[in-house]
Amino acid sequence: MANVKLHGAWASPFSCRVVWALKLKGIPYENIEEDIPNNKSKLLLQYNPVHKKIPVLVHGGKPVCESMIIIEYIDETWPQKPFLPSDPYQRARARFWVKFADDKSFVVRTLLISSGEEQEKAKNESLEFLRTIEEHGLGNKKFFGGEEIGIVDIAFGWMSLWLGVFEEIVGVKLLEAHIFPRLYAWTKNFKEVPVIKQNLPDRHELLLLFKGVREKSLGSSSSS
Amino acid sequence: MANVKLHGAWASPFSCRVVWALKLKGIPYENIEEDIPNNKSKLLLQYNPVHKKIPVLVHGGKPVCESMIIIEYIDETWPQKPFLPSDPYQRARARFWVKFADDKSFVVRTLLISSGEEQEKAKNESLEFLRTIEEHGLGNKKFFGGEEIGIVDIAFGWMSLWLGVFEEIVGVKLLEAHIFPRLYAWTKNFKEVPVIKQNLPDRHELLLLFKGVREKSLGSSSSS
Repeated sequence: MANVKLHGAWASPFSCRVVWALKLKGIPYENIEEDIPNNKSKLLLQYNPVHKKIPVLVHGGKPVCESMIIIEYIDETWPQKPFLPSDPYQRARARFWVKFADDKSFVVRTLLISSGEEQEKAKNESLEFLRTIEEHGLGNKKFFGGEEIGIVDIAFGWMSLWLGVFEEIVGVKLLEAHIFPRLYAWTKNFKEVPVIKQNLPDRHELLLLFKGVREKSLGSSSSS
Repeated sequence: MANVKLHGAWASPFSCRVVWALKLKGIPYENIEEDIPNNKSKLLLQYNPVHKKIPVLVHGGKPVCESMIIIEYIDETWPQKPFLPSDPYQRARARFWVKFADDKSFVVRTLLISSGEEQEKAKNESLEFLRTIEEHGLGNKKFFGGEEIGIVDIAFGWMSLWLGVFEEIVGVKLLEAHIFPRLYAWTKNFKEVPVIKQNLPDRHELLLLFKGVREKSLGSSSSS
């Protein structure tokens, strides 16, 4: 029995955060693919009774929930190649952007499952989200973590693939190179890191899946 | 010039989290009362350009934003009487409840500024919020942190005063001793800690302020 198990779902950017972290640290683990949202395993419900959500990392039989809390757990348990800086002030700055990613990313998800006025609002909020990161978050660094991937890069990792998939499905362009040059360059840098490149979902599969999500959502909202 | 300054507001539970943390650690600081929401200082806007919100802790001229990130910063900078456990798994569990507090507490705020069906919905969500903490969060411990106040106690600290104030203003009872015995006992334990007792806002002043918030909110929503 593996000492480290991940209950996750291949298409979830939250799951992928944990996959990237484990792979970057070089920690072997067993992947347990959950059938979300309708057929979650009993173990998942037992491990995360409050939210009943993936990802859950199980280490030595003990569950850790919430993707970015898992990342900090991984960083504290296997300190090699740290994801967080050592200086308390720089740690606080990193956590600020992790919280920003977690609190604000939903606007882009809203864009995917909305239409008309609601979609226009979500588009504007998504642009504001990107603008804030472009202006305040990244500076002139290669990664949020500096020369190496850090915790903030992992938190924003979904922008390197899912964002473009959502743009294509909805038919809007958000992350344009001439408007957000730093962020655009970052997505390229992030995807070029071998561990990330090898552990991103297949773009075409992702496109098909989220097309279905959008169609189902718009279909059900127009008939309600 | 003080080395530690707090830009806050006396009635904000987010500000009070930082006050409690500083007082528990015994760190002297200068309090800068901000006139929110309409007359924030230029310094506050400069220190927190992304959210433009209190509290901001300024240490040696450098700003730290977001109340629970400030608490971790304080804990890492002044490690005496730690707020977080030392074991990574227990740290992850503490952070889980801190995130739960930050993600879900807004339902009680919604109760304060809503009426009719929306109020009923917020009431039910608030009860669900309390039930989750009662069933999964506290166990039979005196504090979430065990025998001493920890980071989760600080995160939930608003329930020891603001919750009762909101209940009184709205005219509903949520935290009943026979339904939530553990949580009810915790609010008593929390308020009895001398540092907390001495650093809670005046209940009557709080009542007057939030009565005004409710009246203004309901007035503006019924006329819009």
